[in-house]
Amino acid sequence: MERAPAFRFELIATDPHTGARAGLLHTPHGPIETPIFMPVGTQATVKTLSQQDLYRLDAQIILGNAYHLYLRPGHELVERAGGLHAFMNWQRPILTDSGGFQVFSLGQLNKIQEEGVRFQSHLDGSYHLFTPEKVMEIEHGLGADIIMAFDECTPYPCTPEYARDSMEMTLRWAARCLERHRELSQQGDERLPQALFGIVQGSIYPALRARSATALAALDLPGYAIGGLAVGEPRSAMFDTIAATLPHLPTAKPRYLMGVGYPRDLVEAVGAGLDMFDCVIPTRNARNGTVFTSRGRVRLKNATHAEDFSPLDENCPCNTCANYTRAYLRHLFQTNETLGLHLASYHNVFFFLKLMRDMRQAIIAGKFAPWQRAFLDTCGET
Amino acid sequence: MERAPAFRFELIATDPHTGARAGLLHTPHGPIETPIFMPVGTQATVKTLSQQDLYRLDAQIILGNAYHLYLRPGHELVERAGGLHAFMNWQRPILTDSGGFQVFSLGQLNKIQEEGVRFQSHLDGSYHLFTPEKVMEIEHGLGADIIMAFDECTPYPCTPEYARDSMEMTLRWAARCLERHRELSQQGDERLPQALFGIVQGSIYPALRARSATALAALDLPGYAIGGLAVGEPRSAMFDTIAATLPHLPTAKPRYLMGVGYPRDLVEAVGAGLDMFDCVIPTRNARNGTVFTSRGRVRLKNATHAEDFSPLDENCPCNTCANYTRAYLRHLFQTNETLGLHLASYHNVFFFLKLMRDMRQAIIAGKFAPWQRAFLDTCGET
Repeated sequence: MERAPAFRFELIATDPHTGARAGLLHTPHGPIETPIFMPVGTQATVKTLSQQDLYRLDAQIILGNAYHLYLRPGHELVERAGGLHAFMNWQRPILTDSGGFQVFSLGQLNKIQEEGVRFQSHLDGSYHLFTPEKVMEIEHGLGADIIMAFDECTPYPCTPEYARDSMEMTLRWAARCLERHRELSQQGDERLPQALFGIVQGSIYPALRARSATALAALDLPGYAIGGLAVGEPRSAMFDTIAATLPHLPTAKPRYLMGVGYPRDLVEAVGAGLDMFDCVIPTRNARNGTVFTSRGRVRLKNATHAEDFSPLDENCPCNTCANYTRAYLRHLFQTNETLGLHLASYHNVFFFLKLMRDMRQAIIAGKFAPWQRAFLDTCGET
Repeated sequence: MERAPAFRFELIATDPHTGARAGLLHTPHGPIETPIFMPVGTQATVKTLSQQDLYRLDAQIILGNAYHLYLRPGHELVERAGGLHAFMNWQRPILTDSGGFQVFSLGQLNKIQEEGVRFQSHLDGSYHLFTPEKVMEIEHGLGADIIMAFDECTPYPCTPEYARDSMEMTLRWAARCLERHRELSQQGDERLPQALFGIVQGSIYPALRARSATALAALDLPGYAIGGLAVGEPRSAMFDTIAATLPHLPTAKPRYLMGVGYPRDLVEAVGAGLDMFDCVIPTRNARNGTVFTSRGRVRLKNATHAEDFSPLDENCPCNTCANYTRAYLRHLFQTNETLGLHLASYHNVFFFLKLMRDMRQAIIAGKFAPWQRAFLDTCGET
């Protein structure tokens, strides 16, 4: 008797006029409807939202971060708690980022070498070494459904030479990750299986991206991410790089664009054929008082909202818009009350998740191209 | 056809062995079951909790603060929003404190005189004058169900002379409050009626408290508060003062002990015959990482909880205890995540509200005295 594999990407529909596609990514914690936006829960919490809030928002998958959770509370503690799902009491899928981005951006005096990366903790200056093998051990301890390979996320700008050498090293790291992942998967008989995704690098150089994607595709991983974008390059360079990468990734696997983005970025990237996204924008901007609405972005601290007794977004059925006015939300921000951070975050995450659901529906209905045009015409500034 | 008055205090049960009593305080926004704890929502929000959370917690009445809301967003803005209930979308009863405590504790260079108090805003140093009449105008603008008279809250310690002069002035202020309150009540035909409560002062001097209570009782107000306690005096002095005050207040009116307190204070004060309480302790202590449990106080940041995968309180059915472990909550505090503040606040408010419900049930069942003894024996340290 054969069981269906725990991970399986099922393509439901492909748009005839764009690269957009709708799918179902089956995981041990249930299926994920793609295209999907994954709220970022760096430290085992999506900032200001409880897990009950995330269920109410119908978030289907959230992110955790290997670097942050390794430092606090420690992946071994999380493993003893029964893994990240049990530790934070979230029973739907989780994806953990490998920490590649953080050891470069947050670590002090990090030293990159073939073995891995030596870095100092941003918290207490203590020294640590992340190797591909070590990161796999951390991510297995955390026990997310999807785990990311350890990569070097090159900065922008970046010389072709550096980008090439780094990308080649990231490929060698991916092979080491896969080997250690296989060993750990065989040891952990009683644990749920985990899917290792590879990360395409190569800065904005099409040939490097093609090489990276092709080599990773040869590893036959269950999914692929495009990393190293949204790090300061022009928007057009990001989409050119995506276009240069996707033809080299298998269409039957989910494709994840890391760290992107604003609503119009998501709409354009779905049209290009990407399936998965994560970004701190909805939650971070909310905490800065910026909310996304069907009529564009709103700065809550703006004095024009002081006596505006209408909701953030007349067209939004979320808990925040159903219950509170702009005037009240502005008051909460003016008085530094955390309820303001919560209500704005709740709305923004709702907005992003609904945007993805709307796109998926349009793809399945065969109407994505006109939907995309209409969105970019009316809401392009968001 | 006569309607029942909007405000009416109905005594349901009195304990035969203590002064404890259970009642129903009818208000225009529904009845309040006493004894009651009122969560503090100083700036039109109970810190870290949404109004939906407060409904889930079954909070029956919350507090707002005239001083803070006068400064931000302004009582006139709140009035234009339709009053505090509409502004914050809370459809159950609200009580507003008069700001007497805040103009003395937060204001800079305040100057107290018969007319009222001149003070500087703690926010921007701007000058303001609070007279009894002005405070009534503010509280009518806010539109709470219960509004507090403007009083001077004397510090501790305080000479008998100062306490006497201040208490006599507070009595004259109470009469001025009542007069302005009556005028404003007649003007506001279409608004819901508001109940003005008087505040007994007199520091820890029994004769002054008796004089204050007797004189206020003569005004036949719908309820009375005991103010000027829990300001640093010994615990025994607080309860002696309560004992010296209550015989001079009418038994048919609700009695409110302002700014108290810890669970054992509430249990003792209910036994003394008090009906209403407010305090920042459950929410403020929660934000400092201290939670109240059936086995005493717990400091969440303590390292002993790092790997404690049990709930805060095994006996507590609240959302926090039903879903999260001490280890997870400690992690949230260690990483300064606001979800920790929210979950701890939710639990503490639940604990305080349940404590009051348990007392009310024991009073109605005629079993308050043994309940109180058992509580003080087992949970006295809380």
